[in-house]
Amino acid sequence: MVEKKQPLHQQIAIDLRRKIQNGTYPEKQLIPKEVDLAQQYQVSRPTIRQAVQTLVDQGFLEKRKHRGTLVKRAKIEQAFTHVISSYNQEIDQTGMQPQTKVLVFKTEPASAEVRQQLALPVAAKVYKLVRLRYADHTPLVLVTTYLPQTLLPQLAPLDFSQVSLYASLARLHHTVVHVRRKLEVLVADETSADLLDTKVGAPLFYFHTQGYTRDEQPIEYSIAKYRGDLNYFRLDIDQKTP
Amino acid sequence: MVEKKQPLHQQIAIDLRRKIQNGTYPEKQLIPKEVDLAQQYQVSRPTIRQAVQTLVDQGFLEKRKHRGTLVKRAKIEQAFTHVISSYNQEIDQTGMQPQTKVLVFKTEPASAEVRQQLALPVAAKVYKLVRLRYADHTPLVLVTTYLPQTLLPQLAPLDFSQVSLYASLARLHHTVVHVRRKLEVLVADETSADLLDTKVGAPLFYFHTQGYTRDEQPIEYSIAKYRGDLNYFRLDIDQKTP
Repeated sequence: MVEKKQPLHQQIAIDLRRKIQNGTYPEKQLIPKEVDLAQQYQVSRPTIRQAVQTLVDQGFLEKRKHRGTLVKRAKIEQAFTHVISSYNQEIDQTGMQPQTKVLVFKTEPASAEVRQQLALPVAAKVYKLVRLRYADHTPLVLVTTYLPQTLLPQLAPLDFSQVSLYASLARLHHTVVHVRRKLEVLVADETSADLLDTKVGAPLFYFHTQGYTRDEQPIEYSIAKYRGDLNYFRLDIDQKTP
Repeated sequence: MVEKKQPLHQQIAIDLRRKIQNGTYPEKQLIPKEVDLAQQYQVSRPTIRQAVQTLVDQGFLEKRKHRGTLVKRAKIEQAFTHVISSYNQEIDQTGMQPQTKVLVFKTEPASAEVRQQLALPVAAKVYKLVRLRYADHTPLVLVTTYLPQTLLPQLAPLDFSQVSLYASLARLHHTVVHVRRKLEVLVADETSADLLDTKVGAPLFYFHTQGYTRDEQPIEYSIAKYRGDLNYFRLDIDQKTP
């Protein structure tokens, strides 16, 4: 499963992270010693050291004096619950490489649900954009986004495997400044499991998002399924001062 | 399944809500007409009207002119992700009746994990409080809470089926003013499913919470499992102004 054309230490970092995420190396447990990993991967100890350092920097591993290196966490912390930022920005910050595959991008008549969420009239058309999003070649989230076509005729030629939706909306003077999310959980059906490379019945985070511009125009309605085994969300809440 | 000793309209409201929550009456669909419900329950139409109004007030049903009454939502909106409030306050606001069963309340040596979360020394003792919490007789959430015993010797005699933990902490000058939550998902194992009256494999929200006092003392560490079929969470996020 090691990717081609990457430096050895990167290939090893990716392989080690897969073993952390699939439970081969469980949380709070030590990973094998540097010398044993060097032998296992048939590389030098500095190469192992570099791979381990990458995972320390990404927050997956932690070095403990006199004990060795242990698994700090197996999941990726997502800021989706408390900041408005693009997926790529979020993944970049973890030190991993984001990637997006566009599965669907087309125009269609808005369903009753989509019309209600985007405050659109009967017979309105929307873009439907389905993206599968990765971090270091592992699929993390499947997102379906609906956007009002009449407000955004300039979107049609864009390649959303390369450009950010939020950055594009901002350039078109429809910056998203407020989002409302509804958070539910569900288990993966066959299609979600296939696309997200997880098991049928695996628990997923299930977000419905409305994005609003400064003049309170709903400009985006998205449905996102995050893999439960690879992601978690952090929430900080302060007491409202009365 | 209708409860005894409650007014008829309340019994019917509870029964109707169960049918909404178990999918007998699906979301966005009409429920039977008033006259048919009156016949079904063998009560007068004003009694049905009162039961329906209760569920409208609680946000489960919605009246549509000329169409009838439809199911607005089957789940309960929880504010757990964005405000610090007690479970009872949250449920009270929905118009339902909160109830708490204390399954465990005892003192024990803190585990390594609990010591780390509460910044406690080796050999420290903690209270362990396990509560199952209901809304109108339906279990919604199972919470295990750890509290440092030395800081809170006055907690021991309290009956947490009757008093609020957060209100008690405030009275003891340990008001929780900041919480950090980590949100994951998991599927119910046999014990969780039994206690929460759901199925093995059903998806649950899985929160880990640290509660801090004004002087940044961690005073509470809690692990909560919310039923995924009965709860959802709402998040409002504004763009940070640079």
